[in-house]
Amino acid sequence: MPTIDLTLLTDFYQLTMIQGYYKLNQKDQVVVFDLFYRSNPHGSSFSIAAGLEQAIQYIKDINFTDDDIDYLRSQHIFKEDFLEYLKSFTFTGDIYAVPEGTVVFPNEPLVKVIAPLREAQLIETALLNIINHQSLIATKAARVKWAAEDDIVLEFGLRRAQGPDAGIYGARAAVIGGCSATSNVLAGQLFDIPVKGTHAHSWVMSFPDELTAFREYAKLYPMNCLLLVDTYDTLRKGVPNAIKVFQELKEKGIKPKFYGIRLDSGDLSYLSKKARKMLDEAGFTDAIISASSDLDEYLIRDLKLQGSKITLWGVGTNLITSKGNPSFGGVYKLSAKYVDGAFEPKLKISENPDKITNPGNKKIVRIYDKETGKIKADLIALQHEVIHENQSLLLFDPNATWKHMRLQPGSFIARELLVPIFKNGTCIYDCPSTFDIKQYCNKELTTLWDESRRLTNPQTVYVDLSEELYDLKHTLMKQYKSMQ
Amino acid sequence: MPTIDLTLLTDFYQLTMIQGYYKLNQKDQVVVFDLFYRSNPHGSSFSIAAGLEQAIQYIKDINFTDDDIDYLRSQHIFKEDFLEYLKSFTFTGDIYAVPEGTVVFPNEPLVKVIAPLREAQLIETALLNIINHQSLIATKAARVKWAAEDDIVLEFGLRRAQGPDAGIYGARAAVIGGCSATSNVLAGQLFDIPVKGTHAHSWVMSFPDELTAFREYAKLYPMNCLLLVDTYDTLRKGVPNAIKVFQELKEKGIKPKFYGIRLDSGDLSYLSKKARKMLDEAGFTDAIISASSDLDEYLIRDLKLQGSKITLWGVGTNLITSKGNPSFGGVYKLSAKYVDGAFEPKLKISENPDKITNPGNKKIVRIYDKETGKIKADLIALQHEVIHENQSLLLFDPNATWKHMRLQPGSFIARELLVPIFKNGTCIYDCPSTFDIKQYCNKELTTLWDESRRLTNPQTVYVDLSEELYDLKHTLMKQYKSMQ
Repeated sequence: MPTIDLTLLTDFYQLTMIQGYYKLNQKDQVVVFDLFYRSNPHGSSFSIAAGLEQAIQYIKDINFTDDDIDYLRSQHIFKEDFLEYLKSFTFTGDIYAVPEGTVVFPNEPLVKVIAPLREAQLIETALLNIINHQSLIATKAARVKWAAEDDIVLEFGLRRAQGPDAGIYGARAAVIGGCSATSNVLAGQLFDIPVKGTHAHSWVMSFPDELTAFREYAKLYPMNCLLLVDTYDTLRKGVPNAIKVFQELKEKGIKPKFYGIRLDSGDLSYLSKKARKMLDEAGFTDAIISASSDLDEYLIRDLKLQGSKITLWGVGTNLITSKGNPSFGGVYKLSAKYVDGAFEPKLKISENPDKITNPGNKKIVRIYDKETGKIKADLIALQHEVIHENQSLLLFDPNATWKHMRLQPGSFIARELLVPIFKNGTCIYDCPSTFDIKQYCNKELTTLWDESRRLTNPQTVYVDLSEELYDLKHTLMKQYKSMQ
Repeated sequence: MPTIDLTLLTDFYQLTMIQGYYKLNQKDQVVVFDLFYRSNPHGSSFSIAAGLEQAIQYIKDINFTDDDIDYLRSQHIFKEDFLEYLKSFTFTGDIYAVPEGTVVFPNEPLVKVIAPLREAQLIETALLNIINHQSLIATKAARVKWAAEDDIVLEFGLRRAQGPDAGIYGARAAVIGGCSATSNVLAGQLFDIPVKGTHAHSWVMSFPDELTAFREYAKLYPMNCLLLVDTYDTLRKGVPNAIKVFQELKEKGIKPKFYGIRLDSGDLSYLSKKARKMLDEAGFTDAIISASSDLDEYLIRDLKLQGSKITLWGVGTNLITSKGNPSFGGVYKLSAKYVDGAFEPKLKISENPDKITNPGNKKIVRIYDKETGKIKADLIALQHEVIHENQSLLLFDPNATWKHMRLQPGSFIARELLVPIFKNGTCIYDCPSTFDIKQYCNKELTTLWDESRRLTNPQTVYVDLSEELYDLKHTLMKQYKSMQ
């Protein structure tokens, strides 16, 4: 399937800067950039990393065509030798990343790029765009699925998504985060994820009456017969008509694999309880009640608390746009330069202490409690550091160092989260299928305590710095201070 | 430029319904669908229609490939004869639409599709996706530009957009609604819109010190020298270093076409006033102060009220995601069936009076005050109705019919908003360039009273029904009621 050429999907200033680096002959200045974020969307205690597969594809496909070069030339700011250089541009660096579907926390490098400055700079914008978007939607989906407990959640948002890609990749991310299927056929085709859907109000309106519409639908799809019952009057017409059709199927000896009703307006708690009673009294105790009206994690939670009888939730606009928090604040910051065979750590100072970056070539070590398998804390450490499970480990809050805890040897499991993706410009990572990522994500979510999954004001999961990184950061901060 | 094949960019239920219509041989059932929305985003009194060009392209490109057919076959729900039919699927109907950049109001059909039911149904989801997205961003951009008054607004949101398309088409829509340029190079190439950008913090950090970084930048781009001054300390280092570099340019006899500073953190009101003073005292009264930190229409308005000295605004996340209201609630409803040579009006009933649709094959007539050129009201009428400017015209609120007004003959101008786009499946519309749409939109916005452009609680612009449409709607409502 042809995809749009994304080579120019970048901010103009990347190209003006890259021409600068080219002119200054900083060709071989290898640097480290971290892609990380500072706070979770929706007040969550965690996020779900997603989008890596598309980010990899983007990097593999970078190719300045003659049209691209002509376009850049028309801006009258780029020199011919630089344009010539762009023609042969390829990414030659290393990339490490957290696998898609991993539970992640603020300030951790989700992606680490080690590459010549100009290459690291070119890919910044598209990397951020892709990973910000999919991580946002996967995180929202994990929240919605948490609210729905063991019920099934379907992604129904394509018509309200922010453009085709937002619908396509949003559906992928939603499935990773917890949805069982999508209504989006193209996403189904592209990512081999289940697609679902039955009929709309227009189906009912295109027949002389609702009962005829339901009968015709059941004739066509007897095995998969979910009827939308709110076109005219849910309880007085829709549900009785649906029951009539289910009875007719029964009389014909047809046993649908999957059947029931869909509610799309009105009070879903009230209507679902009434409809359940009517279906049960008619003997259709296994008929499903599904709903799809302006749902999000909060409404689903409240409806379940009120004993609503819905067990299948079609979530549209609020999931696909991550309403309430429609952006994931991923940033991309220089953390080191490779000078004389070693990484020289760099720091971005800010008036706001939370915005001071973590310097150096780093890794993330996740510490699990050995007994429960739950996450104890994450440790951001320098690349060369080794955490020994058979030694004791000091964890302390980098913003309140008096908050500390020493883990006993053998009481924890340490896991490094960043895995190699590109080596010298070659992709060395096999992207798992979307379904496998979804399964992995589901397992990842079980490593969080329930207290950290709560929708509002959840318990924070601690992201600490290793002692060595903490000391390095503070030494550099003092150096900057003394330079002023 | 190759684009992704969007033929399957639809909800699965469209295909199950279309197979139904195919099986029931409703091939020739021509229907009318209206694409409209029920309320403006962000409490605005109006919206800007956008996305038509991409919607047209999508319809032209519909083509079920063998791969698409194989994929659908793998769902085990579609019959071979239906799949065969899809292979030769093309759109054969008529489409009317409001031109892009037009000021529009709730309940007006922005797009009217007159086509065989199965064709009208197939295109629903993608039409909504494309037009919802671009109208949302164009509307947000019009609000941001209104707040910025005569200042320049740039679209800087690509890295936080909801996927590549959201960045690409969002940039297009933002320019239509009021931005002068975008940072998005690919959008610049695709739509021939200006691209802008200078350098990031990483440029400064890649040099031993800020002054060197500024000097090197000015050497490379002396004519277009906007320096980002907040990497270390805006007022103590950044602005003085920038002034030093501007002085050096001056000493060399270089007069930049465009130069100044960019603020990206801290209090923009305070910093811009201090920086203005420093620049002025150094003789650089024409140096521009630009800003780009979490801006939206409200913050820009407040900064201007406080006398900030910013005249160039780079707006990112909040514009490209339409934060606060990240979806445009466009819907697509059946309004008529073509039966025995005439349109038989259809109505969708709802418990909520605002959600009852307007029946019939309709048009929008915009009524302008002849003297001021401002919009008096819009009138939704039936297609055959003619509004004579030399006759008096009764306008009344369809929800409060006692609120009425009679316009005198010759006091108003009537303009029909819907223009023909497709005729018998052939596109008969020449899409204007994005720049021309932008110019047109700018003119459109001048037809609104300032009271209706206010950011909060603006004056509503009335959308009335013609007497004939009003009567038809109420007759149909009574018929439905009596059927119950």
